[in-house]
Amino acid sequence: MPLTALPTPAALVDEARLMHNIHHMQQRLQSLGVRLRPHVKTAKCLAVAERQRAAGAVGITVSTLKEAEVFFEAGERDIHYAVGIAPGKLEAVRALRERGCDLIVLVDSLAAAQAVSAHGRAHNHRFAVMIEVDTDGHRAGIPPEDDLLVAVGRALHEGGATLRGVMTHAGASYECRSLEALRAMAEQERSRCVRAAARLRAAGLPCPEVSVGSTPTALFAVSLEGVTEVRAGVYVFHDLVMLGLGVCRADEIALSVLGTVIGHQAHKGWALVDAGWMAMSRDRGTQDQPQDCGYGTVCDERGVPIPGLIMSGANQEHGILAWRDAQAAQAGGDLLHRLPLGALVRILPNHACATAAQFGHYEVLMAAGTLQRWPRFNGW
Amino acid sequence: MPLTALPTPAALVDEARLMHNIHHMQQRLQSLGVRLRPHVKTAKCLAVAERQRAAGAVGITVSTLKEAEVFFEAGERDIHYAVGIAPGKLEAVRALRERGCDLIVLVDSLAAAQAVSAHGRAHNHRFAVMIEVDTDGHRAGIPPEDDLLVAVGRALHEGGATLRGVMTHAGASYECRSLEALRAMAEQERSRCVRAAARLRAAGLPCPEVSVGSTPTALFAVSLEGVTEVRAGVYVFHDLVMLGLGVCRADEIALSVLGTVIGHQAHKGWALVDAGWMAMSRDRGTQDQPQDCGYGTVCDERGVPIPGLIMSGANQEHGILAWRDAQAAQAGGDLLHRLPLGALVRILPNHACATAAQFGHYEVLMAAGTLQRWPRFNGW
Repeated sequence: MPLTALPTPAALVDEARLMHNIHHMQQRLQSLGVRLRPHVKTAKCLAVAERQRAAGAVGITVSTLKEAEVFFEAGERDIHYAVGIAPGKLEAVRALRERGCDLIVLVDSLAAAQAVSAHGRAHNHRFAVMIEVDTDGHRAGIPPEDDLLVAVGRALHEGGATLRGVMTHAGASYECRSLEALRAMAEQERSRCVRAAARLRAAGLPCPEVSVGSTPTALFAVSLEGVTEVRAGVYVFHDLVMLGLGVCRADEIALSVLGTVIGHQAHKGWALVDAGWMAMSRDRGTQDQPQDCGYGTVCDERGVPIPGLIMSGANQEHGILAWRDAQAAQAGGDLLHRLPLGALVRILPNHACATAAQFGHYEVLMAAGTLQRWPRFNGW
Repeated sequence: MPLTALPTPAALVDEARLMHNIHHMQQRLQSLGVRLRPHVKTAKCLAVAERQRAAGAVGITVSTLKEAEVFFEAGERDIHYAVGIAPGKLEAVRALRERGCDLIVLVDSLAAAQAVSAHGRAHNHRFAVMIEVDTDGHRAGIPPEDDLLVAVGRALHEGGATLRGVMTHAGASYECRSLEALRAMAEQERSRCVRAAARLRAAGLPCPEVSVGSTPTALFAVSLEGVTEVRAGVYVFHDLVMLGLGVCRADEIALSVLGTVIGHQAHKGWALVDAGWMAMSRDRGTQDQPQDCGYGTVCDERGVPIPGLIMSGANQEHGILAWRDAQAAQAGGDLLHRLPLGALVRILPNHACATAAQFGHYEVLMAAGTLQRWPRFNGW
């Protein structure tokens, strides 16, 4: 593998692992009887989304209008914009819908429902809308018990919008500390979202879709009864946060940052690499996990983990590689000789979404052993 | 100011503050008798660098070869690549130099000095090299007391490279907790770098340049005797880390993220905005300062700070705005009414370099009251 030909730092994707992750999630959700609507915010890459679709995914989830626009241009029609809609964005949403994109927007308040309905009536346009349900107290949404849920549904349905259903994201799954807790969170996400759908239906409102999801809950749900689709994103790459949660194995992490050793501070046991936080991102998602991985854990050039070696510090274009503790240092030996000037390393990221976003393209190690460059996009 | 016309999130630059910061630093260093070689890694923007040059800056500092290439294409010839050189990058450095770019590289080891010299001899090329000096134990470089310093100088000088001088970056200035500590750190940076130069000269080696710098030390140095140039970057925008250090005032922070309120969790006292960590970056640089600002502090649409309101949490495209404490909440009142759905806010960032890097362009509020769009670039 001609990795030495790549300028560093580079975002390296292992295609075999990527395909494994895509098929694993797809098969799991198929066996649970629900559709998978991948969240493209992780990879922001047409080549990755094509592989998800080929494996059986239906539609996509986006976190920005830019994602909706780019994927629509590439032929995708079925798009769920899973961030509460700002009224100022309705014009851009409508423009996409009028070009044939079935772009669904999200609301969790009367004010937003009324803004969507009013904009639709003013422009003789029927928006497709889902209501965000709060199933874990994590961020946004309306609790299924709150009467506001039905009021929002009514404001949409009677205001001239198409009520597509309910959606939730159990972001609190990232704070689970056991597999039992993950299973319980998945069931909580499912049951509370299904309950919200039942309330809307009992009030005579349409609610065809019940959309749930996060990578941890998607991989740990035992039943998805009542759910129609699952949204998940980071599973394509996985990362150290998922590893720390017990959601993936280390050899399922498909994204790493390729860096080059540029120096040493031998008396401190440091090697310095040309991948700093600009390459890794500032995400310290493992900081609050039992095993803090600094800015990432280090593998050799072939991708084999070097036990106990982490990126312990980062500046913009400098990463500091150091042994996690004295035991690791003793077992691992002298970095000056083990990783001499010019040596390549692969650094596994805390959070794939954040690390990938630092790059304009991926260098993809194809299963066949060749290299391909896949563009990704950023911005809004 | 037609901010409502901007898609959010946006990286908003206040041109009047930018120009104030540029002139303030330039005048300060001129009065201390040294050149300013701005670090373009913060803004990565030709329009910003043009203003620095027009104010009197000489040459630029870069953190990546991409920066060197972009600024060289735009006409800059005098470029210092201030990250230890990886041998694999020497070919690209040589290509730029052979096109007329005076691109200076940096080494802090015999291995790197020998690699540079060997590559130069093999291709009949004279590289221009500086030696990195460790003045604060922060990251890289050779302590001035270490005999390695002279050995590296000799390996370069006798190996066929041009020894341009010594450079240091007192990154530890970011950990100073008083103005006295900042002044002491600036003097430590100066005196130890000057001492390294003196050692090289005493050994009969050339050392024309003595280059020091970080924004805090540049703004707090009392004397720069023996120094020829100062490098600084973040001063163009400043940020909450600089504010926390006492290095700038709040009304000197020239970069903010413009966001739109997309919802509320009224019972928690939250407003949610469409600027999450993808816009702010994951930088939590104020976390270890006396005043932790979360992911940023919040100003209203006009840029007036809302006392005690911070971005307390962030997901990829969601920011959670909340009062810092009960006192701020009591004084500030109800966010649901103060920042209703659709309201615009400006969020001051922890670390301007990291936040700016999340964007492909700046929306610049010109001193004249109009808006301009200035492109920036990212990647390697």
